Amino acid sequence: MTGVAEGGAAGPDIIDLIRAKRDGGQLAAREIAWLIDAYTAGRVADEQMSALAMAVFFRGLSAPELRAWTDAMVSSGRRTDLSEVPAPTVDKHSTGGVGDKVSLILAPLVASCGAAVPQLSGRGLGHTGGTLDKLEAIPGFRAGLSAREFVTMLSTVGCAISAAGADLAPADRKLYALRDVTATVESIPLIASSIMSKKIAEGTSALVLDVKVGSGAFMREIERARELAETMVRLGTESGVRTVALLTAMDTPLGRAAGNAVEVAEAVAALHGEGPADLSEVTLALAREMLSLVGIAADPAVAIANGRAYAKYRDMIAGQGGDPDAPLPVAPHSRVIQAAEAGFVRRLDALAVGVAAWRLGAGRARKEDPVSPGAGVICLAKPGEQVERGQPVLELRADEPARFERAERALDGGIEIGREPPEPRPLVLERIA
Amino acid sequence: MTGVAEGGAAGPDIIDLIRAKRDGGQLAAREIAWLIDAYTAGRVADEQMSALAMAVFFRGLSAPELRAWTDAMVSSGRRTDLSEVPAPTVDKHSTGGVGDKVSLILAPLVASCGAAVPQLSGRGLGHTGGTLDKLEAIPGFRAGLSAREFVTMLSTVGCAISAAGADLAPADRKLYALRDVTATVESIPLIASSIMSKKIAEGTSALVLDVKVGSGAFMREIERARELAETMVRLGTESGVRTVALLTAMDTPLGRAAGNAVEVAEAVAALHGEGPADLSEVTLALAREMLSLVGIAADPAVAIANGRAYAKYRDMIAGQGGDPDAPLPVAPHSRVIQAAEAGFVRRLDALAVGVAAWRLGAGRARKEDPVSPGAGVICLAKPGEQVERGQPVLELRADEPARFERAERALDGGIEIGREPPEPRPLVLERIA
Repeated sequence: MTGVAEGGAAGPDIIDLIRAKRDGGQLAAREIAWLIDAYTAGRVADEQMSALAMAVFFRGLSAPELRAWTDAMVSSGRRTDLSEVPAPTVDKHSTGGVGDKVSLILAPLVASCGAAVPQLSGRGLGHTGGTLDKLEAIPGFRAGLSAREFVTMLSTVGCAISAAGADLAPADRKLYALRDVTATVESIPLIASSIMSKKIAEGTSALVLDVKVGSGAFMREIERARELAETMVRLGTESGVRTVALLTAMDTPLGRAAGNAVEVAEAVAALHGEGPADLSEVTLALAREMLSLVGIAADPAVAIANGRAYAKYRDMIAGQGGDPDAPLPVAPHSRVIQAAEAGFVRRLDALAVGVAAWRLGAGRARKEDPVSPGAGVICLAKPGEQVERGQPVLELRADEPARFERAERALDGGIEIGREPPEPRPLVLERIA
Repeated sequence: MTGVAEGGAAGPDIIDLIRAKRDGGQLAAREIAWLIDAYTAGRVADEQMSALAMAVFFRGLSAPELRAWTDAMVSSGRRTDLSEVPAPTVDKHSTGGVGDKVSLILAPLVASCGAAVPQLSGRGLGHTGGTLDKLEAIPGFRAGLSAREFVTMLSTVGCAISAAGADLAPADRKLYALRDVTATVESIPLIASSIMSKKIAEGTSALVLDVKVGSGAFMREIERARELAETMVRLGTESGVRTVALLTAMDTPLGRAAGNAVEVAEAVAALHGEGPADLSEVTLALAREMLSLVGIAADPAVAIANGRAYAKYRDMIAGQGGDPDAPLPVAPHSRVIQAAEAGFVRRLDALAVGVAAWRLGAGRARKEDPVSPGAGVICLAKPGEQVERGQPVLELRADEPARFERAERALDGGIEIGREPPEPRPLVLERIA
């Protein structure tokens, strides 16, 4: 049985670092820098990093530890240089929700008001969709811009939504893949450093965080969401990125569509001023925060009303190779879920709809899986709306009819109809700056 | 960000099991059986098992979980069949201490009283030596008996001390190596299941545990040692192995020698009735418990006095290929540590002496390292004894003089001399049955 370990000659001993964190100690900034570097280079093994991540799950990271951890993740790759972009840069990040197509509207909307929106985004995994998966439903759209193309888009169009390159915080890429298979995702400091290291490395000067709260969100309780938001706002601010967070409700899908092409269509409607009220409310609240952070007084509602936001959207899509006029893919099979009784829709569970859309083919279980551009769920009735018995509540779309059964099972218990309408609930819950 | 995982088709999902344990849940017996089997077979990755082990460090294992875990480790290999051994079988396991050569004396002593002692043992790692390393200092001694040779030794001589074969609890072998590099060794249920799975698989009908407590032991505090002892006694008893534990003090080395050949020499002296008092006291206490568990009334002190214990030792060594008359190796270089002042030795720290012996070459840092048979430390004065200024307190022995400096550094602060003798402290602290 080993009692004491002999320290290695080069750098700290990883076993000592795991033990220190496990026992509630503090790691020094240089130890954390060594750790992240050694892990990225493969000198610290996966089984050691996962044990340390689990220790962090239980013990947390202090503010100085978290700062050092995030700095090390940023330094593991290249920080994008956006200095030649003439407009002030501001980005938005959402922690992920069902029907969350906000980025598709927000980037051109804010750009049409005079800011530059440098959005490096990810693909969906699990029940929340990914912005890139949605955009790739548009024929010709290219998510993989080079760093040069990205900067050119920002300088000319004013916005771009691109996949992050391999040199953006590679330590985070490796660590996130590890956390995903070791049940160490749900740690506030690890989530915060993962998100913020990428956004800091992206080079944006300002950032608005949309931290989702509710059944369909990663954070179910507002206390945890608030803690995450505060942690990220502090990290961003300390790193020179002006950062604000909104906590927004995610108990029911945002808008009426959850999928890929179906969400693009809804985003286009919103850019024409014809989107669902909840989607517009969240989008405008985020747009106002973004513009305010970079000192632009323009009203985003006006940019929608006068068509400038939609024009900017067309420029962004076309600038990334997409055809904004091409018909969007439609899944060939559909099935309707009817109201079991008459009354008010009291609850339409975001997680149930998200899992159903995922199982219909809109999302992926493993990151190498393809997604179906046409699959998804359309919410024909939303909480607060009245339905007759037998009236369609949901429309499911899929490429193969075999997918319907498991999707319907996900919806079991996810729809609640009653005599009274539900209490109205605010969408924007808190602002954290 | 993933929210829910889709369950795998075959068996439980390892990520779900890690998450359940992480969040304080209970794993079912069939889930644990699946986990240990899948890990041994390589279907659960090291990084997943280490994350789970860290979650167990924080959350513990309930009694039913621990039972299932230990059963699964036993079932990962072959349980030795000792049914043809005519005498009742009883073994001893020590959690490891400095100068702990008790097994070398105890196995032949208890065998000479009529029991059979089937000891499958390990090599040393870190500052506590390994019984096999000590025995291998004897010219010709073979620790790697086949299962057939082991049973034959038990049937003829009545005792054998052999390395465990690869088929003895292979899950434990793999898991222990993982825990060793991920700072997940120090978990009472994981320690208990590691020790007990091997002892249950070894096939002994009864077992006495020597749980060491103190600065040189794995358990520094008596509360933790007691918890470990109680856990192991319960596991053994539930598995049909009559089990008793003694908690014994390990603040200072047991006897005067810490190393390999130097400990063999001291064990031989003890078998002649000429060993240090503390060593004899602990050995006799353990021997009485072992004999009592198998219902043998013989007095082990008599077996030493009449020479039967030493005769049995010679049979055991010779039966395993060793020459009990061959001179033992002696390390060519020695250095003496003198008393800095006159007075009573108040403290001679077990950990300091253990680390010094290790650094002199008696122990290994990695399991593939060789050990020096002749290196070690001789304690010329022990706590309670009076010394003059300049009188030798310790003699260090090594194969290369270059080893002395680091060994001496380990001893810094490990020797305390004062005007008053220290309070006498009991060696056998508690008995747990």
